[in-house]
Amino acid sequence: MNAPATVYLDYNASAPLCAAAADAMQPWLVGSVCNPSSAHRSGQRSRAAVEQARGRVAELFGCPPAAVVFTSGGTEADNAAIWGGLGWPPRGHLVISAIEHPAITEPAAALRDLGVEVTLVPVDGEARVDPEAVRAALRPDTALVSIMAANNEVGSLQPIEEIAAIAHDGGALFHTDAVQAAAWLDLRPLIAAADLLSISSHKIAGPMGIGALYVRPGLDLPPLLRGGGQQGGRRGGTEATASMVGFGAACARTQANRDDAVVRVVALRNRLEASLLGAVEGARRNGGEPRLPNTCHMSFARCDGNALVARLDLDGVAASAGAACASGVAHASPVMDALGVPPDYLAGTLRLSLGYETTAADIDRAIDVVPAAVVALREAGLEAVR
Amino acid sequence: MNAPATVYLDYNASAPLCAAAADAMQPWLVGSVCNPSSAHRSGQRSRAAVEQARGRVAELFGCPPAAVVFTSGGTEADNAAIWGGLGWPPRGHLVISAIEHPAITEPAAALRDLGVEVTLVPVDGEARVDPEAVRAALRPDTALVSIMAANNEVGSLQPIEEIAAIAHDGGALFHTDAVQAAAWLDLRPLIAAADLLSISSHKIAGPMGIGALYVRPGLDLPPLLRGGGQQGGRRGGTEATASMVGFGAACARTQANRDDAVVRVVALRNRLEASLLGAVEGARRNGGEPRLPNTCHMSFARCDGNALVARLDLDGVAASAGAACASGVAHASPVMDALGVPPDYLAGTLRLSLGYETTAADIDRAIDVVPAAVVALREAGLEAVR
Repeated sequence: MNAPATVYLDYNASAPLCAAAADAMQPWLVGSVCNPSSAHRSGQRSRAAVEQARGRVAELFGCPPAAVVFTSGGTEADNAAIWGGLGWPPRGHLVISAIEHPAITEPAAALRDLGVEVTLVPVDGEARVDPEAVRAALRPDTALVSIMAANNEVGSLQPIEEIAAIAHDGGALFHTDAVQAAAWLDLRPLIAAADLLSISSHKIAGPMGIGALYVRPGLDLPPLLRGGGQQGGRRGGTEATASMVGFGAACARTQANRDDAVVRVVALRNRLEASLLGAVEGARRNGGEPRLPNTCHMSFARCDGNALVARLDLDGVAASAGAACASGVAHASPVMDALGVPPDYLAGTLRLSLGYETTAADIDRAIDVVPAAVVALREAGLEAVR
Repeated sequence: MNAPATVYLDYNASAPLCAAAADAMQPWLVGSVCNPSSAHRSGQRSRAAVEQARGRVAELFGCPPAAVVFTSGGTEADNAAIWGGLGWPPRGHLVISAIEHPAITEPAAALRDLGVEVTLVPVDGEARVDPEAVRAALRPDTALVSIMAANNEVGSLQPIEEIAAIAHDGGALFHTDAVQAAAWLDLRPLIAAADLLSISSHKIAGPMGIGALYVRPGLDLPPLLRGGGQQGGRRGGTEATASMVGFGAACARTQANRDDAVVRVVALRNRLEASLLGAVEGARRNGGEPRLPNTCHMSFARCDGNALVARLDLDGVAASAGAACASGVAHASPVMDALGVPPDYLAGTLRLSLGYETTAADIDRAIDVVPAAVVALREAGLEAVR
């Protein structure tokens, strides 16, 4: 649907559907595809496809297929983890970080109205959670700790295994939102450490509208969506055969290509970042190491991020001023607050996020157009209203 | 995916994806399809497609597009309506019928644990709700009445407009689960009467994993899935572009073809039913008029429904022993309880549900094989364990 010239550097918002997933879905988008809960053979063919897809997610996770609950995406998986992790009815104390995605912070805020108490653990100037701060936040009634594996804006990685151990020491369950991490990190150590883990299909080049929640075997998680007993009663609703099949294919593709992609993409990202920092006066990089290999998050002084994204779009580079979910309000992000970005730089954020398909030519193009766009915006007086 | 010989008579479980929906989805399953919340033009193309799809659902509903909230399906729409209709935090009194889908009864049961009180209104021997019974169930603290438009098992239709008026008289909101009705009834009068209405895409030959909740303009419904502020804050989660586009196309196709389909299908269904009742000794029809034009629900004495479905499947007819969501436990259904099906007949239920594509030849085939299958099962001694 794009003009061919567009360089897509917004993979953190969505990784376009990969050919493997699209191809895998096709047979399930034609002919008599039936309800996987139907007893007849047509239904059982759908059932087999759904269970094969579940197996592929399980392989990415390194867990038994029965530990995979399909959801409608990362948001539902996160909501289900927060709700379910607090038991039924939800009660007790919840610990999250100050930079969780709204799919965590919003249900957490809502649950306060049901009597759940929530503690926000701060992050440091590199958007990192100190495990000892999690330990300090624990209380005897802490039911759940939820800390994201990788931040969606600046890409900072958290010491998940250490934090999970601390949560368990305190008698709490541990959940991690791995939505942004799944394309780039080996999820197996995270799964081994966590009780609950969320991923989203479209962040790993599968179809939109599908995701998964890992639920540690033996953990009896109360469902968020209740209905017809599908998925062992853990998530009501007819299983979306085609979407699940596409998601499964995207998981297999991720597993096969991730290691190579990480090596290639981190080099491209580092070259991009160094070039922009060198070429633009008044530029800074946000977030420290370790972080996602694909994410370049910068701020430009005296420049408005939204105007910059619009200008780059005209120049054939698709990027973001912050998280896609919060377009237009990126400079109000809690992540930016936490990072201590200087006021001059606060409005001028730009997130360039690379994917498995990103080429050296794409990066050359970005290096060519981003500095010119920043300069042009400054010259045109389209400066941020501070 | 089916052998060509299969006659599909399980449309109530799922209506296979129509060509119009599959074709509409294709451009959104290739190339750089982006997050509809992304600010760049690639994202805005997805946004435009999502909003066009929302408009198509709105046309089927006869409501403004802003009154349509996309969900992951009928189950999520029902859950969101029950939760949201009780306010936040959920409180007060909920009235539902004794034959609602589990996507209503299960969240209702769970909400009892949060202090919500639930009254089940019984149905008569034809699976119908008496509006006066709803009136009698109302209390000063009744927040929500939820009654399905058409039952998924026997197809009985409820006097929705009358019941909605009674709910409103009592100061309550009114929701109807129109998942099973949407292919066959004009939804506009229901929408005009209700505050909330649920439908599912795959029951009207759109893709699985997508649905919609109508929310009356002006009603500030608390969201069930909370996250990044999508859909005006009413349902968190990246909008699933391809699925929504397919769903929109299925809505347009439903609107264009429904009236003709109803006339054609009701004649086929009536011929099927009369033939089976005439040909099989010990057969009864379950549920009275008015009911869905496509649903034939019967019971055969001294016969097991699940065995019958398996036998018919081998004979090339795909059918169901009850609701797909509850395969294997059809004879324990509250609907069967309500209908007063005689004990001899309770295990031997068969649901044959027709669709827009059902042909006279399909019906001839069913008329040919069903009586023989019942007789064969009885002769083989595969009788129900009563």
